[in-house]
Amino acid sequence: MLKLPNPCYAVIFTSQRRPGDEGYAAAAERMAELVKQQPGFIDVRSVRGADGLGITVSYWASLEAITAWRAQAEHAATRERGRAHWYAHYELQVVKVERAYDWQSEAAGTGS
Amino acid sequence: MLKLPNPCYAVIFTSQRRPGDEGYAAAAERMAELVKQQPGFIDVRSVRGADGLGITVSYWASLEAITAWRAQAEHAATRERGRAHWYAHYELQVVKVERAYDWQSEAAGTGS
Repeated sequence: MLKLPNPCYAVIFTSQRRPGDEGYAAAAERMAELVKQQPGFIDVRSVRGADGLGITVSYWASLEAITAWRAQAEHAATRERGRAHWYAHYELQVVKVERAYDWQSEAAGTGS
Repeated sequence: MLKLPNPCYAVIFTSQRRPGDEGYAAAAERMAELVKQQPGFIDVRSVRGADGLGITVSYWASLEAITAWRAQAEHAATRERGRAHWYAHYELQVVKVERAYDWQSEAAGTGS
C-alpha cells in the first residue's frame, strides 16, 4: 500500500517503446535500483502493456527532489539512450498530489 | 500528443485485477465512452500489464469536473462492481499538473 506524505509530488511518465530490447530491460532495472537511492524518493508504480505503451508513476517528497533526479548523471545518460534507442515518443507530467485514496478487497487478504 | 490546458488536473488510478473477466472488459469499454461525454474531460491514458497491474491516468480541466465524474451515477454503480468483482486493490490520487513535457522521435515519423 502506498503511504504518501503531505505534501507529495509525482512524475507521470507515459512512453511508447520501439520494438526490440536494445539494452532496455537491463537499464530499466538499473534505474529502478538507482532511483531508490535518491533523496526524497518515496515509491514507484510501473506498467507496460503488450502494445509497448507504458506508464510509470514515481512519488516524491518535493519538486526539488524531482529536479535532482532529473539532473542525476547516470539517469541523464540513460535518458539519452532512451531517446536514441528505446522510445518512439513519451509524455511526462510533474504533478502535486491533492488527494489520495486506497482500497483493498477483504477477499484479497493481506497479499498486497 | 497530449495537449493540456493550464491549469490541468489528473486522476491516477492504479489497480490490481483479480483473475477472470466477470464483465470487466465490456464495462471498461463503456466507461471509456462515457467519460468522454463528461464536462471538463480532456484525455485518458491506460495500460495493463500481463500480471494484472494497471495504471489509468485521466486528465481534467478542474477539480469540480473530477468530482462530478466521481458522482456520475453509472460510473458510481460500475465502481461498486469493480470492488465486488474485478479488483484486489487499488490506489487513486487526484493531482494538479505543475509542468508537462513531451518528446517524439524523428525516426518515429507522424504515427503517434
